[in-house]
Amino acid sequence: MANPEPTNDRELVLNRIIDARAVNLYRAWTEPDLLKQWFAPKPYLTPEALLDVRPGGANLIVMRGPDETDMPNRGVYLEVVPNRKLVFTDAFTEAWQPSQKPFMTVTLTFEDLGDGRTNYTARVGHWTVEDRETHEKMGFHQGWGICTDQLAELAKGL
Amino acid sequence: MANPEPTNDRELVLNRIIDARAVNLYRAWTEPDLLKQWFAPKPYLTPEALLDVRPGGANLIVMRGPDETDMPNRGVYLEVVPNRKLVFTDAFTEAWQPSQKPFMTVTLTFEDLGDGRTNYTARVGHWTVEDRETHEKMGFHQGWGICTDQLAELAKGL
Repeated sequence: MANPEPTNDRELVLNRIIDARAVNLYRAWTEPDLLKQWFAPKPYLTPEALLDVRPGGANLIVMRGPDETDMPNRGVYLEVVPNRKLVFTDAFTEAWQPSQKPFMTVTLTFEDLGDGRTNYTARVGHWTVEDRETHEKMGFHQGWGICTDQLAELAKGL
Repeated sequence: MANPEPTNDRELVLNRIIDARAVNLYRAWTEPDLLKQWFAPKPYLTPEALLDVRPGGANLIVMRGPDETDMPNRGVYLEVVPNRKLVFTDAFTEAWQPSQKPFMTVTLTFEDLGDGRTNYTARVGHWTVEDRETHEKMGFHQGWGICTDQLAELAKGL
């Protein structure tokens, strides 16, 4: 069982038992047409998702606010274990160009519980305590919580 | 031919045609017993080198000054293409723990020229212009130049 506690004071963790299979949660994270359906907390939308899912592959995910403002997020995949683990960071915009600001590295694990459910853990590491605090104040727990509800709902139906 | 110019103002580049085969330059970077012989500019020494050469593998290279002060350098390999390319960064201390300070990402390319020589390029990216300037003032060009002389001398004899 994954440890749902942060391993240090620069980390935020979301851990949830989800009523969906690991393979489908992984699909929802790696197939653009699926990711667009759950990634942004509604009424925000995700009009664009380019996902080159391999170590060193880049991603570009654009969220769009209700006022039509686009928020592009760029990152690079660091580790890819199909249906089990996905690691990406915004420290690079493409392999291996440093970004303007390394903010976080996300480690997702999908632990298949064998009964159709998955122990899902999102571990979000930051380079500084300040960035972890900023992320918390930006509403990490609520925001990622809402998105994870949307993810769970979608994956359940796959 | 690799472009020896920096691709942006946060990058430093060392490019050299070396009279040694690509495979032997790669060995000198990836085999601990070889790396220890050239990595630090003499009279500095490299008493320890732990190199887990695979994507996500960690490295620990300890340099020792003439006054016996040890300087440990920790990093993680991002991309490994045997005999051709090696990428590592100090942004992580192990897969995928953010370090205290992401300072640089090093991309080494070993282009075999087919006549026993290699077009060797070390491209060192930084997250900020300030860090690039700091690295330059720390003596990047002279320091990496001296070490590359030592690397070339060793690889030539392999």
